[in-house]
Amino acid sequence: MPAQRPTGILRGERELIRRLGELLRPSGAGPAGRVVVPFGDDLAELSPTETDLLWSVDMLMDGVDFDSSRHSWTSIGRKALAVNLSDCAAMGVRPVGALLAVALNDQLTLEQALELAQGAISLGTSYNCPIVGGDTNSWTHPTVISVSIAARAQPGVPPVRRDGARPGDMFYVTGPLGGSILGRHLTFEPRVQAGIEISATLRPHAMIDISDGLSTDLYHICRASGVGAVIAGERLDALTHADARTLALRSGRTPRDHALHDGEDFELLVAVPPTAAPEACHGLGLALLGGFVAGSGVRIRERDGREQPVEPGGWEHFK
Amino acid sequence: MPAQRPTGILRGERELIRRLGELLRPSGAGPAGRVVVPFGDDLAELSPTETDLLWSVDMLMDGVDFDSSRHSWTSIGRKALAVNLSDCAAMGVRPVGALLAVALNDQLTLEQALELAQGAISLGTSYNCPIVGGDTNSWTHPTVISVSIAARAQPGVPPVRRDGARPGDMFYVTGPLGGSILGRHLTFEPRVQAGIEISATLRPHAMIDISDGLSTDLYHICRASGVGAVIAGERLDALTHADARTLALRSGRTPRDHALHDGEDFELLVAVPPTAAPEACHGLGLALLGGFVAGSGVRIRERDGREQPVEPGGWEHFK
Repeated sequence: MPAQRPTGILRGERELIRRLGELLRPSGAGPAGRVVVPFGDDLAELSPTETDLLWSVDMLMDGVDFDSSRHSWTSIGRKALAVNLSDCAAMGVRPVGALLAVALNDQLTLEQALELAQGAISLGTSYNCPIVGGDTNSWTHPTVISVSIAARAQPGVPPVRRDGARPGDMFYVTGPLGGSILGRHLTFEPRVQAGIEISATLRPHAMIDISDGLSTDLYHICRASGVGAVIAGERLDALTHADARTLALRSGRTPRDHALHDGEDFELLVAVPPTAAPEACHGLGLALLGGFVAGSGVRIRERDGREQPVEPGGWEHFK
Repeated sequence: MPAQRPTGILRGERELIRRLGELLRPSGAGPAGRVVVPFGDDLAELSPTETDLLWSVDMLMDGVDFDSSRHSWTSIGRKALAVNLSDCAAMGVRPVGALLAVALNDQLTLEQALELAQGAISLGTSYNCPIVGGDTNSWTHPTVISVSIAARAQPGVPPVRRDGARPGDMFYVTGPLGGSILGRHLTFEPRVQAGIEISATLRPHAMIDISDGLSTDLYHICRASGVGAVIAGERLDALTHADARTLALRSGRTPRDHALHDGEDFELLVAVPPTAAPEACHGLGLALLGGFVAGSGVRIRERDGREQPVEPGGWEHFK
């Protein structure tokens, strides 16, 4: 959960990513222009010729993505790998290894540096994703951690992209949302096994992990897929985490607002074809949240039929 | 070339890396404990089960590894990928793709951010190593860049490690050394093709790229291989770069001192079996610099037989 929101003269991460996508397109396409995973998804193909191997990188900065004055170095190291494992979950692929690079603030002790590493190593062991190498540096500024992760697609199961949702698809989540800043943003279990089972069993049209917040990540799927989304209000209330209610008592915002816009839930958001049996979805731990429709944008529909638009309200760098 | 040398309470990067190696050993070994590339080499295996794919990560920080007040963002982005390509060169493997992660200082403009990316993308295109994805962030502190690179071993040619040098081996370099801070540390061409040809043709016992400085990187090979090294003084003087002589006029140090200890030459240092024909080495652009001996440590031998020890004097974080 962001501890501060940097403000800069950059007009928004989306604009930077859009421009980067333009720069990269010529070299990012596969053989004969075939693209298995387009730029901007949770993971990238290793190379244009290695399309069953996927990889990804995340960078976490002290004071932005974690707060070393409040969190243990072990939990920070754990989180640095966990967010990458969650990217693997979001495509239904199996993580195979990770690299850990750090620029450590020079006031850290050797023991603290090792705690950071141990947090990542232990989680990697649990998920059969060893840390196989890395890079160590120190400097006078706050600590920066970068984890790269590699994953392999399941045989015969293409990685689940975010751009395949179609009007008529239903969308489900793997768990309740909101208020992760009360602790779950550090302790969450990435939904790796769920992602693998969901992709193999349901062949979802699109999948993403909720890292920026439901409203933003649902918007990502809508924009990439060229569809709109309707959240069922009563389902959202049923899927609002107890932490969101606790947080609402302090924040003065509604629990639903936290469920919609808080980041770092790291649950999966899954677009399922309408032909999928609801029982099969429930059997995989999925809870229905709404459906995709023709058009664009996200809105909430209440039981009585009233609707209101939802703007993406999650975390974006360079706001 | 480091623009500042951070001082910290960490006792030295080597100690941190040694302790990390202990932590990682259980999970870093391949099937049945087989290790194709041991921890601490230029690249790591992708995973214990993907031993022909190698990868690596480097993190560069403004004010430490580059200086954005003096260097263009294009040249900085170029360097961020170039140091990783050099790691591939050092093992004789072919780069296949890279990821670019950034924590941008929030005073950067969008155009500067794109220049940084373009510097890396253009170099990647030249080396057939596309940037296939990444992560963008901003914050109030100096810019941090992390590049991850993946590479594939040549069929039938194992990656060249740093721990295989034997007494009797000769060592060669791909070019003259010292004074890279005058510009070559930004503009160098990573020796990717040379590394591939050298490893396929000569089957060297060990190879490394000179990033920390000749004295330190030669020491790395010696320590990893359990051997000593003798540099031929007159060969070192012949292989001292003109930049080292220019720099010596300002620094008050000798050109040889710069050739020995300056970092970021990014030439390859190659341990070749004594059976290799010198003509074959010369034909690959290699210049003889000395030989490995039983024992440990590095020394220089002059024409008249006098010897003196050389201490590793290159760049180390956490000094």
